[in-house]
Amino acid sequence: MSRARILVTGILFDTAAAIFAKHPSIEVIRAPGPEPWSRDVLIEKAKGVDAVISLWPQAHFVQDVIKSAGSSLRVVGVDSIGYNYLDLPYLKEHSIRLGNAGTSNIADATAEIGVFLTLAATRRVSLAQRALNSGNWKDWNGDLTFFGSATLLNKTIGVVGFGNVGFGVAKRLSGFGLGRILYHSRSQKLESETKLNGLHGAGFCIFCPTLDDMLPQSDVVVIAVDLNTSTQHLIDYRRLQLLKPTAVLVNVSRGAVIVQDDLVRSLKEGKPAAAGLDVMTPEPLPTDSELFQFPQITLLPHIGGDSSDALADAQTVAVKNVVQALVGEEMESEVKLF
Amino acid sequence: MSRARILVTGILFDTAAAIFAKHPSIEVIRAPGPEPWSRDVLIEKAKGVDAVISLWPQAHFVQDVIKSAGSSLRVVGVDSIGYNYLDLPYLKEHSIRLGNAGTSNIADATAEIGVFLTLAATRRVSLAQRALNSGNWKDWNGDLTFFGSATLLNKTIGVVGFGNVGFGVAKRLSGFGLGRILYHSRSQKLESETKLNGLHGAGFCIFCPTLDDMLPQSDVVVIAVDLNTSTQHLIDYRRLQLLKPTAVLVNVSRGAVIVQDDLVRSLKEGKPAAAGLDVMTPEPLPTDSELFQFPQITLLPHIGGDSSDALADAQTVAVKNVVQALVGEEMESEVKLF
Repeated sequence: MSRARILVTGILFDTAAAIFAKHPSIEVIRAPGPEPWSRDVLIEKAKGVDAVISLWPQAHFVQDVIKSAGSSLRVVGVDSIGYNYLDLPYLKEHSIRLGNAGTSNIADATAEIGVFLTLAATRRVSLAQRALNSGNWKDWNGDLTFFGSATLLNKTIGVVGFGNVGFGVAKRLSGFGLGRILYHSRSQKLESETKLNGLHGAGFCIFCPTLDDMLPQSDVVVIAVDLNTSTQHLIDYRRLQLLKPTAVLVNVSRGAVIVQDDLVRSLKEGKPAAAGLDVMTPEPLPTDSELFQFPQITLLPHIGGDSSDALADAQTVAVKNVVQALVGEEMESEVKLF
Repeated sequence: MSRARILVTGILFDTAAAIFAKHPSIEVIRAPGPEPWSRDVLIEKAKGVDAVISLWPQAHFVQDVIKSAGSSLRVVGVDSIGYNYLDLPYLKEHSIRLGNAGTSNIADATAEIGVFLTLAATRRVSLAQRALNSGNWKDWNGDLTFFGSATLLNKTIGVVGFGNVGFGVAKRLSGFGLGRILYHSRSQKLESETKLNGLHGAGFCIFCPTLDDMLPQSDVVVIAVDLNTSTQHLIDYRRLQLLKPTAVLVNVSRGAVIVQDDLVRSLKEGKPAAAGLDVMTPEPLPTDSELFQFPQITLLPHIGGDSSDALADAQTVAVKNVVQALVGEEMESEVKLF
């Protein structure tokens, strides 16, 4: 049997590349310098490889690299939690296994941005920053009700999706003196509930089988679901009307979970009262997007997982997944496709 | 004995005003409508009152109101934690007691902004927002090391001042997977340490008797001290040089705790790597301030305590303090001046 060959689509941190040193039987094909290979070079190098490690900068064309690999390809490892840039039917059809970075610190990094956007929305930070930057600080100083800011004390947080990101947001916010944490998810997450209730008392964290029941009870709604066919356009105009007039909306999942035109329409009518969005449609967001017209929204350019330490950790998980699959061990974080 | 008389300098939330209803023996003097009285009217109305309740919008001239009250004045209640706008020697000389809002939710509101600014600085949010707003999102997309963002996982937080605000920041951040929390304070705060170590294990929260020892160990330095003669200009050029090159600085205390010109000089030289400032010198900050020139700083217009629920609670504490003093009960939050 010939040596197994892995193609890496981009530049690895040293900590991730170090894993290969323990597996001299595997051949690693990657750009030798600090510059990544082009799309054309990667498609050429892919021919006949056993595995592809897909890094984020090259993700938008990695499906072409995967197809170029052909029938030898057995496993793909990605350095992100989401993988909506892959052609899943193709992977299934060719029995190609998939590993994601679901167990990496990317989820922690994203949860941090979830907390950041929650505070940005509840404390109306974008309005305050606008006053500061335009020299109008004095105009509202003292009129503390001017911009509707409220603390998280005794508030109810409703989390949509209770995986590593959603639970990560809930765990962090649970130290802010909340009243309750509600969550909606495909299934009840007893282990996560038990952790939070152990710290804050029985009944602090509550499963809501029906999203429509959770929305009217929540002061903050945090969207942290995976994007898939059942979550696409989950938050539409009808559901936005279920929010309290004072509720704020945070999205650290994917833009397509919200019907963005419906959000714009509902914002114009006053709901949600404020929002924090790390994700939107399309990305990058055109600077003439209507979303920029709402001073009560804090927008971020999809930086949820973007931190140097989380990225290094995500690459490490991507490399581990692929090496484990090639040497016949259980993958650290496999997305079961078949 | 005639009825005790309280002058309220501004407009009270209903929840705070409701306390007076339980004390019909006290005469309350306050503006009847939604508009506050002017400085001149307040100075006239103050003559001969027993107590003054000082609300934030009128704080900048409240000392004149206090002097107008004359020798009848026995107690002043303020709706803020800090009280550097009062003439403390005058209060002492005239045996006037002082109550502040130290036990109110203002500390929680400020701690939330401390967490917000910590995440803004560590995740380089201001740089990301600049890219988004200028249409340069694509330019750095994928180059995740571009702006030096890092998560709080395993990081060391150094908190300067461990009162309600400093501990409030520490308690909230302790759920973010930190390595350790160090704090510097006039005295060791065993009760606060025990709470954090109970959740995160012995050695998680550590008292640093010397600020100069704490600064070089910290990945994030959060300033949360009271401003007084011993903390004014505490953070000067020499101390800024003790920071790690990667460290970020957050201030939710008062601008004068930092020598601002020293901070500007040190930022130009690269330290701290990023910052989050809710307070600065002077306030309001002129729009031509050099602080606006640093894209790695997130600035807020002193909104730490500014939330409608925290303000209502602070007013409630201010009213309680004054009523308690007049009826001979212990004050909920007295600042001992004599």
